[in-house]
Amino acid sequence: MAETKNKKDDNIVFIGGKPFMNYVRAVEIQFGTNNNKEVIIKSRGKFISRAVDVEQVIKHGPLGQNVETKRIETNSEEFENQEGRKVKVSTIEITLAKK
Amino acid sequence: MAETKNKKDDNIVFIGGKPFMNYVRAVEIQFGTNNNKEVIIKSRGKFISRAVDVEQVIKHGPLGQNVETKRIETNSEEFENQEGRKVKVSTIEITLAKK
Repeated sequence: MAETKNKKDDNIVFIGGKPFMNYVRAVEIQFGTNNNKEVIIKSRGKFISRAVDVEQVIKHGPLGQNVETKRIETNSEEFENQEGRKVKVSTIEITLAKK
Repeated sequence: MAETKNKKDDNIVFIGGKPFMNYVRAVEIQFGTNNNKEVIIKSRGKFISRAVDVEQVIKHGPLGQNVETKRIETNSEEFENQEGRKVKVSTIEITLAKK
């Protein structure tokens, strides 16, 4: 399944390069089995497009009637690449919430 | 330069595969030379990540002090591909506005 952080942050789904439906199911599990009121989809760089895809598939799927997009925030993060150079990358956080 | 629509929509910048700085300059021109209060950055599919990159570069550049992100909206569009099959693609609209 998609990776999750520690328990406190377990309503966060980080979008990366795993099979697409893993992320959709991870969001569904957070709303369903784990009964969270909000789920935050996070990603950065080239995976930002995928985060929006996950959001759209959720909203057009079985949960779509009960879930709305509460907030979309973008930002930048700086990190050191393998050559020790500072690199900026864009980030997105999409908060889905039960209506 | 980045493509623009007809005059009525000339505060819209569509992000595609042209050189990245073309889009940054297109946004700067809309705010500067054309004196628009709002500029809408639109893109779809894999170019969504690039739209966020353009927004972030604007906000960390010379205009950054005077421009804020007013609204971010995501959606899906359906279109027919070359084989005549209906395909869904995610879209984003980022509205930047002068403070």
